[in-house]
Parts: sequence; C-alpha cells; structure tokens
Amino acid sequence: MNATPESLLEKTAKLSDEVTRPFPASRKIYVQGSRPDIRVPMREVQLSPTHTQSGREENPPIFLYDTSGPYTDPAVKIDLRKGLPALRTPWIEERGDTEVLPGPSSAFVRRRQQDPELDWLRFRNPRPPRRARPGANVTQMHYARRGIITPEMEFAALRENLKLDALRADPRYEKLLRQHPGQAWGAQIPETITPEFVRAEIAAGRAILPANINHPELEPMVIGRNFRVKINTNIGNSALTSSIAEEVEKMVWSARWGGDTLMDLSTGKHIHETREWILRNAPVPIGTVPIYQALEKVDGKPEELSWPLFRDTLIEQAEQGVDYFTIHAGVRLAYVPLTAERVTGIVSRGGSILAKWCLAHHQENFLYTHFAEICEIMKAYDVAFSLGDGLRPGSLADANDRAQFAELETLGELTKIAWDQDVQVMIEGPGHVPLQKIRENVDKELRDCYEAPFYTLGPLVTDVAAGYDHISSAIGAANIGWYGTAMLCYVTPKEHLGLPDKEDVRNGILAYKIAAHAADLAKGFPGAQLRDNALSKARFEFRWEDQFNLSLDPERARAYHDATLPHESHKLAHFCSMCGPHFCSMKITQEVRDYAQAQQISDMRQAMEAGMREKSEEFLAEGAKLYREV
Amino acid sequence: MNATPESLLEKTAKLSDEVTRPFPASRKIYVQGSRPDIRVPMREVQLSPTHTQSGREENPPIFLYDTSGPYTDPAVKIDLRKGLPALRTPWIEERGDTEVLPGPSSAFVRRRQQDPELDWLRFRNPRPPRRARPGANVTQMHYARRGIITPEMEFAALRENLKLDALRADPRYEKLLRQHPGQAWGAQIPETITPEFVRAEIAAGRAILPANINHPELEPMVIGRNFRVKINTNIGNSALTSSIAEEVEKMVWSARWGGDTLMDLSTGKHIHETREWILRNAPVPIGTVPIYQALEKVDGKPEELSWPLFRDTLIEQAEQGVDYFTIHAGVRLAYVPLTAERVTGIVSRGGSILAKWCLAHHQENFLYTHFAEICEIMKAYDVAFSLGDGLRPGSLADANDRAQFAELETLGELTKIAWDQDVQVMIEGPGHVPLQKIRENVDKELRDCYEAPFYTLGPLVTDVAAGYDHISSAIGAANIGWYGTAMLCYVTPKEHLGLPDKEDVRNGILAYKIAAHAADLAKGFPGAQLRDNALSKARFEFRWEDQFNLSLDPERARAYHDATLPHESHKLAHFCSMCGPHFCSMKITQEVRDYAQAQQISDMRQAMEAGMREKSEEFLAEGAKLYREV
Repeated sequence: MNATPESLLEKTAKLSDEVTRPFPASRKIYVQGSRPDIRVPMREVQLSPTHTQSGREENPPIFLYDTSGPYTDPAVKIDLRKGLPALRTPWIEERGDTEVLPGPSSAFVRRRQQDPELDWLRFRNPRPPRRARPGANVTQMHYARRGIITPEMEFAALRENLKLDALRADPRYEKLLRQHPGQAWGAQIPETITPEFVRAEIAAGRAILPANINHPELEPMVIGRNFRVKINTNIGNSALTSSIAEEVEKMVWSARWGGDTLMDLSTGKHIHETREWILRNAPVPIGTVPIYQALEKVDGKPEELSWPLFRDTLIEQAEQGVDYFTIHAGVRLAYVPLTAERVTGIVSRGGSILAKWCLAHHQENFLYTHFAEICEIMKAYDVAFSLGDGLRPGSLADANDRAQFAELETLGELTKIAWDQDVQVMIEGPGHVPLQKIRENVDKELRDCYEAPFYTLGPLVTDVAAGYDHISSAIGAANIGWYGTAMLCYVTPKEHLGLPDKEDVRNGILAYKIAAHAADLAKGFPGAQLRDNALSKARFEFRWEDQFNLSLDPERARAYHDATLPHESHKLAHFCSMCGPHFCSMKITQEVRDYAQAQQISDMRQAMEAGMREKSEEFLAEGAKLYREV
Repeated sequence: MNATPESLLEKTAKLSDEVTRPFPASRKIYVQGSRPDIRVPMREVQLSPTHTQSGREENPPIFLYDTSGPYTDPAVKIDLRKGLPALRTPWIEERGDTEVLPGPSSAFVRRRQQDPELDWLRFRNPRPPRRARPGANVTQMHYARRGIITPEMEFAALRENLKLDALRADPRYEKLLRQHPGQAWGAQIPETITPEFVRAEIAAGRAILPANINHPELEPMVIGRNFRVKINTNIGNSALTSSIAEEVEKMVWSARWGGDTLMDLSTGKHIHETREWILRNAPVPIGTVPIYQALEKVDGKPEELSWPLFRDTLIEQAEQGVDYFTIHAGVRLAYVPLTAERVTGIVSRGGSILAKWCLAHHQENFLYTHFAEICEIMKAYDVAFSLGDGLRPGSLADANDRAQFAELETLGELTKIAWDQDVQVMIEGPGHVPLQKIRENVDKELRDCYEAPFYTLGPLVTDVAAGYDHISSAIGAANIGWYGTAMLCYVTPKEHLGLPDKEDVRNGILAYKIAAHAADLAKGFPGAQLRDNALSKARFEFRWEDQFNLSLDPERARAYHDATLPHESHKLAHFCSMCGPHFCSMKITQEVRDYAQAQQISDMRQAMEAGMREKSEEFLAEGAKLYREV
C-alpha cells in the first residue's frame, strides 16, 4: 500500500487489457426474462462450418455460463471509480420492505469516514446503506417460503438453463445434446430449471441465492446440489503484500475465468476501503470472514475479541454489501481439546482465533452463544451464512475425525436456528481427505445439516503435492462435487507456500472449472455435455479455432498449439503436431468414416449387431473398389 | 536432427545439471537383498529435529520409491556414450536359458548397420543381442509358474516395501505409520510384499515384471493391482521436431520426476538409433508401439504393411531391449464400422493404422491372425504385451461404447492365448470417460481380461480442458487407479495441442504422481500414508525445509515459497506468507496443544467422549491460570 493517492486512482481506474479483452469468437448476449430488466448474460461462441464432400455444414453457436460480468461486454464502459450499474436496485425497491439509511450504522465506519488521511484511497461514489424496515425480513429464503418468485430467482433459473429449452427445439442441436445418464447420488435435478424450482429449493434450504440488498451490482446465481456445481475463489492482501488496485484487478480476473463467487480474505490495514472498491465493481457474490477484520481491530489479540465489537463488524460489512459471511460458530469450547492430538491441530485461521478466545476466557464461543442475534443481522440485509469449518482437517491423518464431525453436527444445529429466521445457510467442509473417505463427508453433511448446500475446500487427496495442490485438490473436488457438494472453494498452486499471483489464480480457477464441470457431467446435469460434444466434434474435424474457442481457457489452448505449430495455416491444416503431416489418426479415421458412409455401414452395423458377421464380411468384400485413397 | 556428428556426441555425452542434480537433503541408499548383487535403490530424506520446550526431538528419515536410476547417485559416473551398468546380466546368464547371438537377427538392422551415413548418430557401445535358446521360454511369468523367484522378483518386492518391516520395528515411526483403512474394491494387498507374493501375482497373470533380457540396465519393478500404482510417460520425436540428445535427456528427466516406465513413441527417420541411445541409458522399462516404425518402413502407407515386415520390426526392437510392446491386435475388421458414427472415430494412431489396413485389404487384422506367432517372439526375449486399445474413445460421447468394449473382449481372448505361452500381458484402457462411467471400465477389464493388469491413459473426465488436460485426466486417473488400474499413462498440458517440452513433461508426471499416490492411499496400500504424515508434521511445525524436501517436487515447492518470502530466515520463522507474522493459525494451534497438554486433556477427552460434558467444563475452568501467553 505504498501508492500515492494519484497513482492509486490512476491504477484503479483502468484495468489491464489482459483482464477485460473479449474471448475470441464470442459475444455477450442477454436472455430476457419475464420483464425487460431481467437480462441474463451468456457467452455465445460462434463456430466455423464443417467442410464435407457435399459442401458446408453449419455448426450452431454454443452458449456458455458467463460469470465475467460487464467487463467482457464491449458495449459497457467500465470506470472502476464509478462502479458497476446497480441492476438489482429496482427489484429491491419494488419489494418495499427496505429503507435507505442516512449513513452507516457501524460506529467503526463512522469514525473511519471522518479520517481525512484515508481520503486518498476511498471509493468515490458511495451509495448510502439500505436495511430491512423494522420487523421485515428481506432474505431470498423468506420470499421463497412465502411463495414469491423474485426477479433474482428467475435470473438464476435462466442462467442455469443456458437456453436449453430453445436448443432442444432446434434440430441442429439434436446430436450435440446427447449425453450419458448421470449417477446423481440422490440429487434430484429436473430436466429444466424453472424459476419455481429455484424458489422451491431455496425455500427447502437445499439452495441459497446470496444477494445482499447492499450489493445491487451482482448478477444473481444459485448454489445448491440440484444446480450446476459452482466454484469460489479467494483473494486478499496480507500484511506483507498487495494493494487495492491489485485486489480489484484480481477480482475481475477471477470472474473472467469463471469464479462464481469470491471471498475477500484481506488482513491488511485498509480492509474496509479495499472491500468497498471490490464490492462496487463485483458482478459476483462476495464473501468474507468477519472475524479477520474484528481481529485487526483488537491488534491481533484474539482474547480481546468481544461480541459488541464483532457485531459492529458484521453491520459494517453487511451495509457495504457482503453477500455471505463465514461464521465459525461451530468451534465450541468442548471441541477444542479434541484437536490436541491431531497431526496438524487447527488449520483454519478463524477456527484457531476462536479456539484461542475460548481457551483464554474459558467460555463458550461467543459466536455460538450469540447465534440468534447474528441471524437478526443477516436477515436485515440478506447476508447468507457460510457456517465455517474451523476444525477442518489440515492433513489426511486428521480427516473425518471426532473434532471435525463434532463441529459438523453443531453446524446442523445452527442451520435449524438460522432457518427458523429464514436466513440462508451453506456449510463449509474440508480440507484434506483421502479419496475413500470423501463420500462419508457428503453423506454426513446432507444428513446432519438437512441438505443445506455443502461448500468445500478441495479436498486435497494427498499432503505431499506442495506446489501442485490445485491438482491434488481438484481430484478431491471433482469427487466431492459429484457426490453432492454445491460449491467448491478453489486452491491455487501456491497453497501452503505463499500468496497466489494472477497466474496462480488462473491456474487454480481452471483446475476447479474442470472439477465442477466433471461433477456436472457425472451427475447428469441436463445439457452439461453439450460443450464437450461440440468441442470434440471440432477437434475431430480439425477446426482448431473452434477447439480453442470452446475450451475453458481459449488463450492458453491457442498459445500451447502455437508453441509447436506457430503458423496460421496450421490451424486449418488437417493434421496436428503430435503426428506430423503424413501420419495422423484423425485423418485416417475420416477415411474410415467416408468408407463406412459409402458402404451404408449403419445398416451393416445393425446386421452385425444381430450377430450376422458373415453377412458383414460379404458386405465389406464388395467394397474393394470404393476405398478412397487420399 | 540437424546436429553435426560432433555436436550430437557432445550434446549427448553430458546431461544438463538440471536433470541430474541430487534432490535436497536426500541420499541414494541401496537395500541389499538375499545376495550382494540385489541392491535396491531408494531415496532417503533426512529431516531436521523438532524443537520443543523440553528440547530437541529427532525426526527419523523417510524412504521414498526412487525411479531416477544412477543419475541421482553422485557415486556413479555417468557417460551416456557408454550406457548404464548392466546390472541384470549375471542373473540372466545364471539362468542358462539364453544365448548371445553373433549379431542382430533383423534384416532391417543388418542393412542399416552397413550404412556409413548413419555412423555419426549410432550408439558407440553396442551389446550383441541375446535370445532364448531354442525351445526355452525366458519370461518372468514362465519362471513364476515354475515356482522360481528370480532376482528381479525379489528386487521388485523390496522396492515395493520401502523398508516397511524395519520401520514397523522402530518405535520412532509408530505414529507416522498410522493410516486410514483403505477401500480396495477387491484388490488383495498383503501387509508386506514378499518376493513369493510377487512371484505368485506374476504366475496368476495379475502382475507383470517387464524386463527384456536385452535390457539388463533396468531396475526391476512390478505392475499389478496389488502393488503400488505406477505411471508411464511418453516421449518421442516426430517428423517436425526434436533430436536424439533431447530425447535421451527427456528420458532421464522423466525417470527423475517419478516415471516408472517410459514409452518411446518416436516417428522420425532415426527411430532405431534413437531407441538404442535411450535403452542403453534407461533405468526404467521401455515400451514402444512397433507399428509406428513398421509404418515408417512403408513410407506411411498402412495398406503396404505386412506380417513379415512387422515380424522383422518386432525382432529388431526385441533385440534392442524394448520391455513391452503395444500391439493393437484387438482392432478386428468387424469392429471398424462400429466407430463410424462416433463423434471422434478412431483416435489411437495404432488403431487407425490397423483399421485402414483392414479396410484396404478386407481382411482380418494381421496382428490378430498372427497373434500366436507374436507370442513366440515375445517369450524368446521376455517382451510383455501391452494389448493396445486401438478403439478407445476420443471423447466423452464415445466412452464405453460397443466399439471400445468389443475390442476389450477380444483383448481378453488374446490374453488367454498369451498366457498359454507364459507371455506377460497388460491391457490398455481409455481415454475420455466421464466420472460416473469409469468404474464400469475397470470392472469389465478385470472380468473379461481375467485380472490382467489394466494400464489406462487418463482418462480425461471432460473434453473442454485443452491446455489443462493433465488435470482433467489426473482426476480420472486417480479414480481409475483407486478402482484397480495398475499403471496410469500420463497426459501433459499439451495433449491435443502440441508436443510437450520438458516443463510439460514435468507437469504431466507430477499430476500423475499425485493421482497414483492418491490411489495408493485410497486402496490402503501399507505405508502409503507415511510420507503424508511426515510432511504434515513438518508443515505443522514450520519445518519449511522438510516440507519442501518431502514434497513430490521439492524444487518447485521451494521456488513458490521463495516467490513470496525469499529470505532464508523465513524458512525457519514460525509463520507463513498466507497470514503474515502476527496472525498465524499454526502458531495459535500450537498454543492450543500446549494448553491441552498442560491440562492432561487426553484424559478429559475420554471423559467427554463418554458424554460427561459437565466434568470437562469443570476441568477447563480449573485451568484459567495455566494458559500460556506467547
């Protein structure tokens, strides 16, 4: 944070081209819902035609889930100093259950606002905070339970579907929409995600729609086992590194590559101001761990934490617009000693802060004892709980132990309390777990926490992969996502070693996009295989550009290809660098296919499948002259 | 291949420091077997002591499986022009069932040897080929079935165990050896791998020990479901890139990072000479796909392939010392049309070559019709079959289809024929398979191929991860390894896009070391968790150097750490860059542990677990004064 005021604003005003340039052959489209102001963004990827012997065959466009927000829309002028358009404000105002406050309710914020030394790094376009009117409950769960389908719910439903109904009615997509039946382990995924289904899932507590009334900039999305598996990314400056400009750029970068939500885990001196910049420019839900900031306020001494101080911090952040709070209310005093014989003790920062508080005071965790009061705050702004796993295992050895599961049982108890006030809840999970112990985590969470969405960090399936923990944990993440986890918290290659830079963030996100998509495919999410099918068809037909453009990271796919074959003509050539120009399996296979077509081989296949091998051999023998030399 | 003779030799004579430097804090040790010339290499990692309040506590060394060969032994002088020591020659000679031939049997090789234009790139220290005496069978399976435990089997057994018996008898390892029970899906892994167990598994066909009598340099290893999961790497020049020097260095590089076996998939003009350099310097088993070279000999025209030409190629390569051949004998004529309606047809190069041959001649695959004759060659040198999956799926859409499974059934039929002649067999598998369809592949392979070891490429669990397919496939590989695959063929980040460079090879191997180790852990392989436990203990105690040194890639772990905290003092500091110096969960946790110890908390834990919460609260309350401020 050594920037001068001028350079801070200058640096923060414009993002680097790298984080905003549109994806190749893609355009941002908006699907309109039941009213003109429900406009759901998607990325449409245009494909080139297939050249066949009989001519050109069009390949229809593919629609992708788009978390990148307005940053990839050339029609939107970005000025980070102004923030993103507040698209949800009309919806919130229409509901008539909130009021705009004259200023922040937090005493800390009021003091801070009067400090002229902070002027230079303040966001310049603040919005006065909004809160539920007295007695009102403004959570999406509350609306859902009263049978109300909010615009947010409709938005999220359209987003999950990616125009699937329209594609099903379009014969060009018929073959592309074929996919393997899933194994969903009890998830109940409908053929089409309707707004009513989103409402029903939120009402049942099986899904959350994180959307603080003070974060009107966000594009609504839904987290639950019966929806697409989501991924969360983390950013944050620490006492040692980083700056506001870097953090805002990292947030945009995270959304660009597919982060569905983002946690700001900053621990530096200017947490409040950094968070404002991030929220005002964030198209995705933002989460925090309020105990981190509370600890800053008591100079890093956990024993000096108190409920009034923490409460003020919750209000501070809720009025800025944080969409979900990690609350480690399950770290009960009695569980702390259960960690004493572990190989890696307590590895959650929040967990260890609260464990230390409990021991210092010999009292029950104040987040546990004040939990109902926390719910009162959550429902006044619609902040969702991410009930923290403060006792998650930090090593395989500690996986699924009594400390971890005791806390999980308490999180179930707290879930009920939150739901009694219609506050949205998801449940955090581990951590480090060997493959054969992963399913037990999901099964227990679903049972003990009444199917509240599970949100897990990895898990890493081995402890020995330092420098490659995005891979170790993506293995665990794909499996736990398949079994029923709703959102996967990413891990970067720097996990356990240092703070991630932009490339680490990209690598972590990509590993998790793979894991989440693998889970969607395995569960049989409707339409999930469409992108795979379209890409594989492009690959088989040597439509290199289409292969790149349909990949999760088009830029890297192209760069890797160009590293071996840099010439433009190679991207049209019917060979690839693995085999060289004279010896290509794809090329040979095309000849097989041409041959089979010439022979009306599909009839033959039916014959063969009926066991008439002799007939097929006779049939093949006839074709000698039809074999095409290329 | 533009090198001049001088520069070729010069470049090939010495390896770069990067591929040979010893691993930090490690030394090569040799465990002696029942005779002095059975010396099994392992890597011993020395750890630093733990500093506790009561003093120093030693951390015993950890022994790691070491595939790197003599290259990481400073006591061995490497000269690639001479090749590695022929450690198996005495064992082979003792058996008295082989004879040294006056020269190569292959007509192709004899012609090639007389070409003075190739002098400059020939390996200078050739060994005359060896072959079984007439009527003899020199396969490890043949010995195993006659009840003979060969030195190779004993070597492999000691290698699997990593001194586990000695560690079990040493109280310093007691806690480190604790591990979670595995879920082995029917694998029968004993507590200790004995030489007799290796023999019995090979005799039953459930394992192979690839060890051509003409590759005496190799350090024996075993591949089977009841042993550690292995990984295979691929290297190979193509018509477009690469040189001999690069290929040899890539082989050493692959062994360094943990490749258990290596396939040389070269397709260039000097395949024969490149292979000689690789084999003479390879401490790991080497596999090839002989049809690639056969195709070169007919100028890339599959229809001109013939059995005599192919037979000569098998003998050529067997006499050089190739340890396993991929043979696509399951690509039967009748199965070719089954691929016509696939999204990605035939993606195996070998498969497409043979499909083209079948169509061109309208005859059954000559590898299928001559299979028993191929077995005759295999048993004369002890080359193992890797029965190729020429019809493996190249996309999720084609996974587990009739073409793939028809071929797999034929591979089972061929396995029986090979076993009738005591020829070792493993079975290749896919490819691209979504998570929920992976287990079916293993179950079918085990059933239809009589538990012959399964050897799979990935599988990739999504098609959309171009540029990150090492990750997409490591997810599939961890799962398929867990279910029972014996060896995983790696995939690099350049898969589908280009040829891997050294960093790609490293990244691919590391992803697969993670997958294989995750599978070992999940199956409950004895001692598998020891390294994880030791590393996690080091991590918890802020022994940074030990954490790096126990990681799969110590160099990268250190580099990533240093990117944030470059100072040497940080590696001793009791904090890490994620949290900064004032705020560290690990530090806080240590305080919890000290507290719990002071309170004799383990007694309390027992009390609590019996439900006596009141007692525990009273116990905690007593401790107010004992809490230690740091």
